[in-house]
Amino acid sequence: MNKPLILVTNDDGILAPGIRALIEVASRLGEVVVVAPDAPQSGQGHAITMRLPLRLSRVDAYHGVESWECSGTPVDCVKLAKHVVLKERNIDLCVSGINHGSNASINILYSGTLSAAMEASLEGIPSIGFSLLNYSHEADFEPSKLWALKIMRYVLENPAITGRLLNVNIPNLPAEEIKGLKVCRQGDARWVEEFLKGHDPNGQPYYWLAGKFINYDQGEDSDIRALEEGYVSVVPSMHDLTNYLALPAIKSLETY
Amino acid sequence: MNKPLILVTNDDGILAPGIRALIEVASRLGEVVVVAPDAPQSGQGHAITMRLPLRLSRVDAYHGVESWECSGTPVDCVKLAKHVVLKERNIDLCVSGINHGSNASINILYSGTLSAAMEASLEGIPSIGFSLLNYSHEADFEPSKLWALKIMRYVLENPAITGRLLNVNIPNLPAEEIKGLKVCRQGDARWVEEFLKGHDPNGQPYYWLAGKFINYDQGEDSDIRALEEGYVSVVPSMHDLTNYLALPAIKSLETY
Repeated sequence: MNKPLILVTNDDGILAPGIRALIEVASRLGEVVVVAPDAPQSGQGHAITMRLPLRLSRVDAYHGVESWECSGTPVDCVKLAKHVVLKERNIDLCVSGINHGSNASINILYSGTLSAAMEASLEGIPSIGFSLLNYSHEADFEPSKLWALKIMRYVLENPAITGRLLNVNIPNLPAEEIKGLKVCRQGDARWVEEFLKGHDPNGQPYYWLAGKFINYDQGEDSDIRALEEGYVSVVPSMHDLTNYLALPAIKSLETY
Repeated sequence: MNKPLILVTNDDGILAPGIRALIEVASRLGEVVVVAPDAPQSGQGHAITMRLPLRLSRVDAYHGVESWECSGTPVDCVKLAKHVVLKERNIDLCVSGINHGSNASINILYSGTLSAAMEASLEGIPSIGFSLLNYSHEADFEPSKLWALKIMRYVLENPAITGRLLNVNIPNLPAEEIKGLKVCRQGDARWVEEFLKGHDPNGQPYYWLAGKFINYDQGEDSDIRALEEGYVSVVPSMHDLTNYLALPAIKSLETY
């Protein structure tokens, strides 16, 4: 059997420690091609670049691994990987991350890491977004690598049942303190903003986005709860945003 | 009873003809505050600005209507509207658009217009994204205004049943040719990319995102079908991306 072809991307940029960890794991499982942003792209969500051209350059960043850096967003990277870099080739798996910081709960909407994985899933590629609950550049990715290896192997063996996109978050704990893995639903939390107001050197006002993550979810089956309890959380996710539960009631609008 | 407070935003920029149309309609129903991008922000999805400060300036753009332009993304505009401009005030409705071009089906992921409305819905505000299937700056928004008025009135009267976020698309037809309104699910379509490759004045290669919208959905209840048949499509949408159908099967990962 041929080695699986694994596309690796992220939103922290091609030189971030988190993507290095993911490339190391992916290289144990298959042939790896990296297409990642040339600069940090956190918070880009599902943004795409329409009004400007994109740059795409081959780089020697990871010994023996075909690597490309791109001037665009994480979603742009996946589009270029699929349609320019890999063209006709069948991609068996796309992994994005390992993100420096949580993408649990509502963060999936804002996260370039998860949007890249979702874009690949739209192309029918089984995809996983990985995030470690530690924002530091000096975070220890060794425990995450063990879980990433296990989950990637599972998806490669079970592509049909994984629902195409998994959102994986890993608690910031030493390997021996991680209690296991839980398959969860997306928790109901949100950011409460507190803009920092200041003045620039010309005396003009500015606002800088800050905020606190607030959990409104008391359920036992949310990703937030699993992480709080020391488990790796895995949320099968999708791009159909239809609120099917609300649909019947809103039918009354048709005859309003 | 007090007049409802209606927040208006968009992704085409504060001077786009589409937002003017929406402001006119909203002004018939309540007190209007506009917070919109100072430049086009199409394709920004749910992007937020974290690494740069934001500018927010009061502008005289619409006679008698409190209006602010912001240097950020559509989602930034909603966050600033809620937490800086309107602070303690209760927002009864947020409307975004009218977008110049379709946001049916998968476009909800890429659309700044819909992401702005979704951000408001995360804050508990009933929200509607409006889009007209015409990209031209000279599009005729008069038929859209009739439908926007009707749907906004319905949501103001029924905030509890509208599931917080509606994705409304309006066919590019004269008023008398629009057959009615259908409440639908999000259609299963996607963009197939064809990057335009070129060379800049220095001889360096670039790639420019192009693409075709391909409908894979033969169902009769999709938004794409409703629009093809000449109906206004309304999809109740949400921010919970959990793939609940895939959840049980993936439980096997817990013991893998």
